[in-house]
Amino acid sequence: MNNFTFYSPTEFVFGKETEKQVGTLAAKYGASKVMIVYGGGSAVRSGLLNRVKNALREAGLPFCEMGGVQPNPIDTKVYEGIDLCRREGADLLLAVGGGSVIDTAKAIAAGVPYEGDFWDFYIGKAQVTQALKVAVVLTIPAAGSEGSGNTVITKVETLQKMSLRAPMHLRPVFSILNPELTYTLPPFQTACGICDMMIHIFERYFTNTTDVEISDRMCEGVLTAIVKEAYRVKQNPQDYGARANLMWAGMVAHNGTCGVGCEEDWASHFLEHEVSALYNVAHGAGLAVIVPAWMTFMAEHHPRKVAQLANRVFSVPEEENLQEMALACVSRLKHFFRYMGLPVSFKELGIEHPDIPLLVRKLHENKGPLVGNYVKLTPAYSEEIYRLAL
Amino acid sequence: MNNFTFYSPTEFVFGKETEKQVGTLAAKYGASKVMIVYGGGSAVRSGLLNRVKNALREAGLPFCEMGGVQPNPIDTKVYEGIDLCRREGADLLLAVGGGSVIDTAKAIAAGVPYEGDFWDFYIGKAQVTQALKVAVVLTIPAAGSEGSGNTVITKVETLQKMSLRAPMHLRPVFSILNPELTYTLPPFQTACGICDMMIHIFERYFTNTTDVEISDRMCEGVLTAIVKEAYRVKQNPQDYGARANLMWAGMVAHNGTCGVGCEEDWASHFLEHEVSALYNVAHGAGLAVIVPAWMTFMAEHHPRKVAQLANRVFSVPEEENLQEMALACVSRLKHFFRYMGLPVSFKELGIEHPDIPLLVRKLHENKGPLVGNYVKLTPAYSEEIYRLAL
Repeated sequence: MNNFTFYSPTEFVFGKETEKQVGTLAAKYGASKVMIVYGGGSAVRSGLLNRVKNALREAGLPFCEMGGVQPNPIDTKVYEGIDLCRREGADLLLAVGGGSVIDTAKAIAAGVPYEGDFWDFYIGKAQVTQALKVAVVLTIPAAGSEGSGNTVITKVETLQKMSLRAPMHLRPVFSILNPELTYTLPPFQTACGICDMMIHIFERYFTNTTDVEISDRMCEGVLTAIVKEAYRVKQNPQDYGARANLMWAGMVAHNGTCGVGCEEDWASHFLEHEVSALYNVAHGAGLAVIVPAWMTFMAEHHPRKVAQLANRVFSVPEEENLQEMALACVSRLKHFFRYMGLPVSFKELGIEHPDIPLLVRKLHENKGPLVGNYVKLTPAYSEEIYRLAL
Repeated sequence: MNNFTFYSPTEFVFGKETEKQVGTLAAKYGASKVMIVYGGGSAVRSGLLNRVKNALREAGLPFCEMGGVQPNPIDTKVYEGIDLCRREGADLLLAVGGGSVIDTAKAIAAGVPYEGDFWDFYIGKAQVTQALKVAVVLTIPAAGSEGSGNTVITKVETLQKMSLRAPMHLRPVFSILNPELTYTLPPFQTACGICDMMIHIFERYFTNTTDVEISDRMCEGVLTAIVKEAYRVKQNPQDYGARANLMWAGMVAHNGTCGVGCEEDWASHFLEHEVSALYNVAHGAGLAVIVPAWMTFMAEHHPRKVAQLANRVFSVPEEENLQEMALACVSRLKHFFRYMGLPVSFKELGIEHPDIPLLVRKLHENKGPLVGNYVKLTPAYSEEIYRLAL
């Protein structure tokens, strides 16, 4: 097990009707003016936005707002938000939505007190040393951004999709998770979220670090729960218990609870980021295409941990041939994704002829000559994985 | 799943030689003077206390100190600490030790700014509304106090062993966990710690709350890891990987990571607290005696969750007769405890003739007419469990 720091100071308030507490929580964390950030119309239509505003009014907190954040959130919206936040003098960014909204709010929070271009943080030109407070009312369990210090933004001009980690400054001070708010998610979006949270665990689970039994078992436990609850929510989207389990799973999948002390991989995410940056597909759907291909590659090159996953989560019997076990894992994972309504190939994703050379070139331009850690991917390996996803 | 709040703001710094960071961490968290609290001579003999002091000196932090905290920590030591802390004007309590030391430090931290008797907090006469900061250099993985807002103190005069939960004020600001510091723990103390952390999970796992799949799977995962690593550390006390897994397990077993959304039980702890208060035995050893008896009782009265544990953690095959599965669980748990060198009966604990009527009377005086939640124990039930432990 490697040395590590685990720091997850967010207060998570979980359960039915918890969004009513948003005003008292924002006041408790010292907000004097709140800037609400949200996405499309669903938060408006469902009445959630109004409930949030009423709770802020009851707590005597003034607020301003910015809607219109899109999936795969973009830099131009961040600039708009930074301007608005500075003009209004808000000191707490309240994200009402899913990962895209939260990631935009985080980018604004880091950008407002910074004199330069916020994009500097995403390309490693500057470090976040201060930020406004961020808080969350979560509506889509997927990205895990409600518990992480990470944010991913795409630069429109160059289609660079870049991530930033600043756990000491960008972890939300509080996150409100009401599973009822996820009842009305379209099945496809639910499935994309489930895939995303599973892969957040995979990125930590697929490691060469030894002596990480507790990390392995926790990852496997959360994955087992996700798969079981996914079937239930597919049957009944208004199953509170299933929604609740999935919502919490999405958080623990990404706040660091899983995978402590492990060297992490992240190749699958990086391979996918190029796909969603170029073709603007849903991140979870892109992962459902990339990960079985990545895993098929690993069955040949480094099957050990894939075989362990096969046995402990997907009930593949143990056998001597680890490659066979790993391939059985790919098969069961694909079956599960298909059952959930997810694509498992570029073709099913609606991209008949992906520009693989361009994807490979952008990937290694953005992430360097070797990508990932479980097996360090050269451009030739990346190309092979993209081809396995056709 | 029940509504819940999860709040674990402690910064955990884990790994080899991490105690060297204690000075910079204390300074980062705003200490101006540190009061070191420790137990017997082992922290002195091992050189740890000197290393901690040197790290504080290097960070330019003055300190005072109080040693001599005993297992099953007592109120008189807390009063001594409160006096010293007030005299010295320290503002951060640094516990260097295990649960007893940390719990004493927490009691001092709550007591210093309080005008009344600190014991008020433990008997529910007052609520903690402010406390000095607490930080930890952990030497015994067991109590989980390094990640919790809980503390347990015994009043010498009345032998009341009472616990206090104040998660908003008494969670350590940082905890340093170096598994190497646990190499020299005597095997019996290692085993007691392992038992304690397992039972911290049991107290959450044994619940009637439904739809807690993710909690169940995480509990089972951590338990599975503990049992495996316990065997390894028994074979080789200086196995870093095993020590590391166990040290982290002790933390997650009690900081709330396991068992979110569950009504918790805690009957086994309360049954045991009376035993260690009256006979001054090691808490973990007391639990190894009480829990198999509690579980045997449950095999008859409410076997469902015991049978699930049997299957998923102790590899007992599924069968229709849940009582049989639960009894098989008891048998395997006892075998494991015995292998670790723990007693599994009052007799093996060295108490040939426990005063069961007194234990029952004290238990229900301190905790009310019904104890626990999985099955609410009446005095008759409590007596039956104590008798099963003979």
